Order: sequence, then structure tokens, then C-alpha cells
Amino acid sequence: MSEDLTARLAALNDSAAFNRWAGFRVVAAKEGEVELELPWRAEVGQYAGFLHASLVSGLIDTACGFAAASIVGRVLASHVAVNFMAPAVGRSFLARGQVVRAGRRQVFARAELFAMNEAGDSKLVATGETLLMRDGA
Amino acid sequence: MSEDLTARLAALNDSAAFNRWAGFRVVAAKEGEVELELPWRAEVGQYAGFLHASLVSGLIDTACGFAAASIVGRVLASHVAVNFMAPAVGRSFLARGQVVRAGRRQVFARAELFAMNEAGDSKLVATGETLLMRDGA
Amino acid sequence: MSEDLTARLAALNDSAAFNRWAGFRVVAAKEGEVELELPWRAEVGQYAGFLHASLVSGLIDTACGFAAASIVGRVLASHVAVNFMAPAVGRSFLARGQVVRAGRRQVFARAELFAMNEAGDSKLVATGETLLMRDGA
Amino acid sequence: MSEDLTARLAALNDSAAFNRWAGFRVVAAKEGEVELELPWRAEVGQYAGFLHASLVSGLIDTACGFAAASIVGRVLASHVAVNFMAPAVGRSFLARGQVVRAGRRQVFARAELFAMNEAGDSKLVATGETLLMRDGA
Repeated sequence: MSEDLTARLAALNDSAAFNRWAGFRVVAAKEGEVELELPWRAEVGQYAGFLHASLVSGLIDTACGFAAASIVGRVLASHVAVNFMAPAVGRSFLARGQVVRAGRRQVFARAELFAMNEAGDSKLVATGETLLMRDGA
Repeated sequence: MSEDLTARLAALNDSAAFNRWAGFRVVAAKEGEVELELPWRAEVGQYAGFLHASLVSGLIDTACGFAAASIVGRVLASHVAVNFMAPAVGRSFLARGQVVRAGRRQVFARAELFAMNEAGDSKLVATGETLLMRDGA
Repeated sequence: MSEDLTARLAALNDSAAFNRWAGFRVVAAKEGEVELELPWRAEVGQYAGFLHASLVSGLIDTACGFAAASIVGRVLASHVAVNFMAPAVGRSFLARGQVVRAGRRQVFARAELFAMNEAGDSKLVATGETLLMRDGA
Repeated sequence: MSEDLTARLAALNDSAAFNRWAGFRVVAAKEGEVELELPWRAEVGQYAGFLHASLVSGLIDTACGFAAASIVGRVLASHVAVNFMAPAVGRSFLARGQVVRAGRRQVFARAELFAMNEAGDSKLVATGETLLMRDGA
């Protein structure tokens, strides 16, 4: 069930010290697709006040990893690639990860990162993809 | 001069809220090559106690960006890709970024991330590469 | 108009010696989205009889480039990344490229590659993405 | 022995129809490092007379794969990424692939592609990296 899955991924998210500090939150999940949110605050910014690349990459990587985990359980990322398309400026950020293909040993996932402003408008600021290994595979 | 360059990049590093919070430090720099260090602490960890992927990517991205900045000044990353080769477990982490090619509009850079233990031994845990746009190019 | 665009991209395709030899064909095009086809023959295979990685990458790269060209004119690829998801075995192959974001200097595009069998069924065998520079930008 | 390895990889190369057609040649090999050559001819060109991206990617991918095969035997590429740094114009092209890390299930490799002119000068025109799965792993 989707609520159970969301709760399970939220617990996984809370088990990571960095995710708690940064403020990652699991806001939606269904099999193969997960949404993470990060509210803006000064500590997540780079010198110009955009969301730091560490967090752009980290939200994308984590959304992909949770989307994979929603299908196959524990995974480890081998590769992540991120495209920075527009300045990541917003009141909050939403990463939507989805599994493209879950194989016997590997999972391919991708994600989009949106910046949301006060009016609730969203803008695509980055995309990314990951290659994950199934644990024990 | 290399000491001037190191000081200049250290100031750039300190101008970013995230870099200060996370604890990034510029430890060496020459033209086209920069080293960043991050001491381990619990807040930078994921659920299993490894360095969080956000910071693996962030150190690689930042080391590449500073290496590019050491040659061409201000840059913006368009693309970053990271290979996770081994668990990022250590007392501190060292990212070494270097410019592969600086063109008229784009800079290609790559980086390696090493984990260091108490004995001072280092292990390669990740590699990555970036494509950066020169500001105003 | 879409037929004009298809004809224009077909002419571009035919101007490249490799595309003629390999047998790339532009089968559909609208603004920001292009489809390329490659019929199977032995010369495009690797040792196990799958489509050679050169052509998997090349179809993805070309579909992305043509999708970009359909919006902004001449472009040059800076970066291409390809995920090999399943053995590329089929009677023909279809690459569908689309522009994700066309900026002032850069274009981000992505593509999917499908293998088609005799029955006309298609299977996703690879995905990829490119970062292209606008000519003269 | 290195000559045995070179001969073994040359046989592997010759077993692929595309490699024979395109003209790939294994020119050097030692454990974890392989060099491939491709002489220029019109059929490998794109519209402007540069080496076609399919072959830039294919030489990089193949050099990485052979470097991996020299250590661990049969592999399959999961991911390849290529950076196009300069126009690939030359009388011949040399790809040098090397293994960065060979793990229990995965191999990380990277390669550089050089263009050689009549005078024998070489120029770096592309770099790339691959993630390969060990067969049966």
C-alpha cells in the first residue's frame, strides 16, 4: 500500500543523519516512484544563494535510490549523473525519482528536480540518472 | 602564486554557506589542480555510516569547479557524473580536482575522492567528472 | 511544418557518410522531437550478434542532436551518456530523441532506443542523454 | 604475457562484424590497459568530415571493455559517458583504455581518444568512462 510505502521510506530517510540535518522529507511514494522535498534555508546554499550542487545531486540521487528501494529493497548507487539546467532558486525543492528498468542485478532510475516559489509555481532546474546495484545481487 | 591562489579559493569556499556548514576546506591549489578536505562527523553520514552521496558528489563537483576557477575564473557546472567505487568510510576525505581541458566556452574537469583512515592510509572511493561553462562565455 | 522539418533533417542525415553507410533514416520529426531508424544487418553487430555499442550510442547521440537542431539549428555535442539496459537484438532499431531544455548557449536532450522484432513489438534497450552547444553561442 | 594478451584481444576484436568493418585494431595491451587504433577513411565521418560520434563513443567503449576483459574476462557495459573536447580530425585515431577499479561484480574503466596527424603529432579529442558488469557476476 502506498501509505505504508511512504512511511517505510520516511523511516529509511530519517535513519540517515545527513538527510535529517539537510531536511529531506519523503512526501509521496508509490511502487517505482518517489517524491522528496527540501525546504530552502541559508545553510543549503552556495555563494550566490542557489541550492548547493551537493544537494541538487543528493536529492536526485536519493529520489532515485528510494524509487529503486520501493521495488527491489536495498540498493547501492554505482553511478549518478546530474544536469544543471537552471539556477536552483526557490522556497522549496521537489525531486521526483522513478525507476526506468529494474533488472536482476541492476536498477536504472532517473529523477527531475523542481524549484517551487511562494506562489506555488514550479520550475525544472535539474535532471539526473543513477545506476544502482541490488544488494547481494 | 600558489599561496595566493589557495587563499583566494579558500575565500571563495568560505563564501558558500553549505561549504562552511559541511566543513569543506581548501588544502592545496595550483593552476588547474585543487585539493579539498572534509573531516568526518556524524552529520555527513548516510544510514550505514558512510559519507553521504550528496557529499561525495559535492566534494567532487566543488574540487572540479575550483580547479576550473583557478584557470578561467567564474564557472557554472552544467553536468556532473560520479562513480561510487567503494564505501566512503574514513576519518577524513580528500578530493583532488584537475582541469582536463579549458576551452573558450567550456571547461572539462575531473576529480578523485580518497578516504583517509587514522593511520593516514588513503583509499580511492569515488571518481567523477564535470562540464562547466565559463561565466559570460 | 513537420514534413518540411523531416525532409530537412533527412537531408542533414544524408550529408554524413557514416549515417549513409550505417543506414540511419529519419522517420519522424516535429519541433524538439525526432525519430531515427536503423534496420539490422550483420555489419552493425558485435561479437554476440547484438547491435554494436557504437551504434547504440550513435543512434542516441544523433537522435538528440537532430531534436536539438529542429529547434535551434546547428549544434555540437559536448557530452553523451548511454545506459545499456537490455541486449539490443532486433530486426530494426528506433531512437526517439527529445529536447528537455534549450537554453541560450546549451541544449539538454535525451533519447530512448527501442528494438523491434518481426512481430512489430518494441522493447526499450537503452536510454541516453546529451549536452549540446549551440553553434556560435 | 603481453603478446599473448594482445593476440587474444585482437581475436576478440575480429570476432565482431562492426569492428572489422570500421577497422578497429588492437595495437597494444597489458593487464588493465589496452590501445585501439582506427585509421581515418570517409565512411567513418560525419557531415563536416570529423570522426563520427558513433565511432568516438565506440572506440572509447571498446577500449574500456577490452581493458576490463584483460583482467576479468567477459564483461558487458552498463553505462558509457563520453566528453567531446575537440574536433576529431586526423589521419588515424588512438584510444587508450584503462581499468580504474575492478570489483567483484563491476569494473570501472576510462579511456582517452587521440587524433594523430600525418606528422605523427597527437591531440586529445575525447575522454570517456564506462561501468561494466562482470559476466555471470
